[in-house]
Amino acid sequence: MDCIFCEIIQGKRPGHFIYEDDTHVAFLDKYPIDHGHSLVLPKKHFEEVTNMNSDEVGELFSKVPMIAKAIIKTTNADAFSMAQNNGRAAKQIVPHVHVHIIPRYNHKGTVWTKRDIGNDEELKILAEKIRSCIHDFAL
Amino acid sequence: MDCIFCEIIQGKRPGHFIYEDDTHVAFLDKYPIDHGHSLVLPKKHFEEVTNMNSDEVGELFSKVPMIAKAIIKTTNADAFSMAQNNGRAAKQIVPHVHVHIIPRYNHKGTVWTKRDIGNDEELKILAEKIRSCIHDFAL
Repeated sequence: MDCIFCEIIQGKRPGHFIYEDDTHVAFLDKYPIDHGHSLVLPKKHFEEVTNMNSDEVGELFSKVPMIAKAIIKTTNADAFSMAQNNGRAAKQIVPHVHVHIIPRYNHKGTVWTKRDIGNDEELKILAEKIRSCIHDFAL
Repeated sequence: MDCIFCEIIQGKRPGHFIYEDDTHVAFLDKYPIDHGHSLVLPKKHFEEVTNMNSDEVGELFSKVPMIAKAIIKTTNADAFSMAQNNGRAAKQIVPHVHVHIIPRYNHKGTVWTKRDIGNDEELKILAEKIRSCIHDFAL
């Protein structure tokens, strides 16, 4: 099975990780629609949330507040959205369940298309900053 | 505290309910962006998910697969997205945590603005259909 996200999780492809535990990871989205846009994923491969049981879905989303708080602290975002798409008609691009955390800023609109934000070196530095404060928000 | 969603939950305002248990409810969005667009909410008032602890967030999202499956069965949707906004810059309109479940259809685009779908009587019938099959998907 070729899955880009499984390959990132397994270290076979590069990714700017901001969080990892035994069962879940988070890394910056390679195609951010806003500054700090990140993804939270189960390490185990599931195509859609309807393939997960309710406890697995709950566990995945229970990680979001901690990760979102670290992103917001680092980016000074004013707000954030979560989004999670299931199926091609919902524009799910990679068929491995992932929750988008999208920081939002008062002075910008809420577009849903990729913005040209940060080169690879800038994203690396951003990820390090988020990672360094994430455990301040562990529950 | 005046909260439109608390008032719907308490029966002080009308709502087309599709699910209810001791701690959570789901009802059709009054301003659907696609056919079957619904909201899942904790009965307890929280402004944003960052005001909830991780267990509370997990419990909220653990309800989504069951509710989404009932919506999909009823609407014949091809896919669905979840979205959850926190703060005005993320276009959170009602400051009571709510998860959008947005069914998507192959023959339609994925707009994020209100569509003119269904009058009140049609929404009432749709809610009854979803409600009548939701326990088939209880986990």
